[in-house]
Amino acid sequence: MQTLIWNTLAPEQQRDLLARPALANADSLESTVRGIISEVRSRGDAALRELSARFERAPRDTLRVSAAEFDAAEARLGDDIKAAIRQAIGNIRAFHAAQAQPVLRLETQPGVVCELRTQPIARVGLYVPGGSAPLPSTVMMLAIPAAIAGCREVVLCTPSPASDEILFAARACGVEKVFAIGGAQAIAAMAYGSESIPKVDKIFGPGNSYVTEAKRQVSQDVRGAAIDMPAGPSEVLVIADETANPAFVAADLLSQAEHGADSQVVLVTDSPALADGVQDELARQLAALDRRDIATAALGGSLVLLCRDLDEACAISNAYAPEHLIVQTRAPRALLDKLENAGSIFLGPWTPESVGDYASGTNHTLPTYGYARTCSSLGLADYQRRYTVQELSAEGLKGLGPVVERIAEAEGLGAHKNAVTLRLAVLK
Amino acid sequence: MQTLIWNTLAPEQQRDLLARPALANADSLESTVRGIISEVRSRGDAALRELSARFERAPRDTLRVSAAEFDAAEARLGDDIKAAIRQAIGNIRAFHAAQAQPVLRLETQPGVVCELRTQPIARVGLYVPGGSAPLPSTVMMLAIPAAIAGCREVVLCTPSPASDEILFAARACGVEKVFAIGGAQAIAAMAYGSESIPKVDKIFGPGNSYVTEAKRQVSQDVRGAAIDMPAGPSEVLVIADETANPAFVAADLLSQAEHGADSQVVLVTDSPALADGVQDELARQLAALDRRDIATAALGGSLVLLCRDLDEACAISNAYAPEHLIVQTRAPRALLDKLENAGSIFLGPWTPESVGDYASGTNHTLPTYGYARTCSSLGLADYQRRYTVQELSAEGLKGLGPVVERIAEAEGLGAHKNAVTLRLAVLK
Repeated sequence: MQTLIWNTLAPEQQRDLLARPALANADSLESTVRGIISEVRSRGDAALRELSARFERAPRDTLRVSAAEFDAAEARLGDDIKAAIRQAIGNIRAFHAAQAQPVLRLETQPGVVCELRTQPIARVGLYVPGGSAPLPSTVMMLAIPAAIAGCREVVLCTPSPASDEILFAARACGVEKVFAIGGAQAIAAMAYGSESIPKVDKIFGPGNSYVTEAKRQVSQDVRGAAIDMPAGPSEVLVIADETANPAFVAADLLSQAEHGADSQVVLVTDSPALADGVQDELARQLAALDRRDIATAALGGSLVLLCRDLDEACAISNAYAPEHLIVQTRAPRALLDKLENAGSIFLGPWTPESVGDYASGTNHTLPTYGYARTCSSLGLADYQRRYTVQELSAEGLKGLGPVVERIAEAEGLGAHKNAVTLRLAVLK
Repeated sequence: MQTLIWNTLAPEQQRDLLARPALANADSLESTVRGIISEVRSRGDAALRELSARFERAPRDTLRVSAAEFDAAEARLGDDIKAAIRQAIGNIRAFHAAQAQPVLRLETQPGVVCELRTQPIARVGLYVPGGSAPLPSTVMMLAIPAAIAGCREVVLCTPSPASDEILFAARACGVEKVFAIGGAQAIAAMAYGSESIPKVDKIFGPGNSYVTEAKRQVSQDVRGAAIDMPAGPSEVLVIADETANPAFVAADLLSQAEHGADSQVVLVTDSPALADGVQDELARQLAALDRRDIATAALGGSLVLLCRDLDEACAISNAYAPEHLIVQTRAPRALLDKLENAGSIFLGPWTPESVGDYASGTNHTLPTYGYARTCSSLGLADYQRRYTVQELSAEGLKGLGPVVERIAEAEGLGAHKNAVTLRLAVLK
């Protein structure tokens, strides 16, 4: 990791250091994905079967995973992983169920009742990547809030073969409609529907650049589907002082770095000694990692920023807007009020990022690429829509009507005024 | 308005009737707007001044509205409109302040604390259209939740000249940075910043097709800005039975129709007599309207759907997903549990849409064009970001760590596991 002393840098250098790298290859990606979506829209399952034959590790004609396949997956899994998944589900369910909102009802003036209510989004699609490892955690993070919200239709797509862990987690989270197909074609199928895959209203989940681009494209079409959030490579920023354990910090940096060569890893510290200690630990721990090539590549693009004090560290983090923010300082909670624009914050030495990735209860679907400035951590609210209801009594309209008439007049909207005036005339 | 009997139609006819019309002219619009954004990004205020000279009714060199201009606007306005705006602000503020969420803190298992917190989005931009009438109501709807959320920077753009009502409402809602510039160039300026206009993180507000397209484009660029929601023409659906007052229903349909020739207006009723009565009232009320040409054009594209019963009426509304839904039936609240996909619902004879447009307390910024299936009514939450915090004690990690290790192993992510393992080793 490259080490820089923050306040020796010019403002433009500081800004460029914290900017995310441009995502490569955008034009050809866009047209390739557009072609796939168009094929799936026009030819449905026939196109999906052809794409399965071309791209899947285990191509299949019947895309939907059968009950027998679920049963077989469950039978093959050991009790320990099943128990671990069940415990994670319990925690995630508890934290997401606690996010439910009662109806907000307020009488803003006599006889004028306003309500804010929530409803589940009717049909949701979940995408779970395949790739180098099965990701049952993604199933849990996407499916549990859908079940709590009460979404009527929940569809899950994942590349073929769907791993045993994914099928077990899906069933444990109440998802029965699983289709073993991945890539942009899976996103297209969920956005527009095919003979076998139901159309959904909103699509959730991470994926490779094709999946991300497909989500972007269908979200731009009103006949397509909404999406959870825009996506970029995963990232972590660690704020640490001289009290931090260098081995812990290095382990946390590496658990981000092993995600992919494009993972972003930033350490911000006011302690040169801690920075040195972390570099030593990185070298030591790297050697023992299965995914050391990926992690090494990611560390090549990563940064150690030496800052003056923890206030400056917070300012750097706020400017970067990290997906994951780990705070290992003498009094981590004391920094909370100074921290902005982070997707999820991990406080103290006993809170590695991996607890939130899997099992503490928080959602691991978080805004990346600087989107944490405006986007939220995924939660129950993303599976719901908020809408308002209002009801005026006759007395309520008598009280409020003249105000509405006066503003409608100022806006030159005579019919808006008249809708009140003719009612008030009846009430006289 | 064209009248159709719903259950005599084929399913495809039903679907097509409820689909929104395609928005015209998309390609040339896209490139025109792309050009404007590029000009503003590269030349800043110089480009804005040129565009002001070309497009504004009152071109100006100094874009920011001065304190003296605010004072003069306030001095010119009558006390009655000021009082009306103040009363509306009071109701809107009360309903949006009630939406604030306390920190959610849950110990999901011993020593594992998860929190859901909210923070204001730091910098927001509000767009208030000019056009045929000043819209102080839009100022209130966009600025009040920004103030309650505590957004650090609030910028408002509106075409020049900014009306007295808009300036009065802006100041009354705590907005001091008002710039008299409209169109795609205003959106570009807020998304990227110029010498005089600060860059913001998220842009809110309605506008013409140039504004809407500019918002779409800047929201696709991570260096641009997020936006409130996608937009289309405004629309209302009224569910009425034989107990409804035809004059009230007609007045509500007209207050939607006067917005623009592309406004969508739908009446769904199980009573042919009510449908006839409404048609008669429409003809009568139209004659007296200032904006009757606009309203007549909108009604030309609008529908009366005769249905079998109120259950079918609810199903039609749910399929249409209206921005505004007015229910004038014998027992309107009894339908609430059957109604989905509406932006805002107005119950009963004394609740015309215009009370929500201006003053009841609910927000009038609502999802149009079918987006109500997944998008929410604008509220305090749109000016905030939700993020999670977690903190484990040593005991907490001892309890949860093995679960995390087991799932990390299943996912083949050794560094994720190691971040737990080396901590547990210290705790032994």
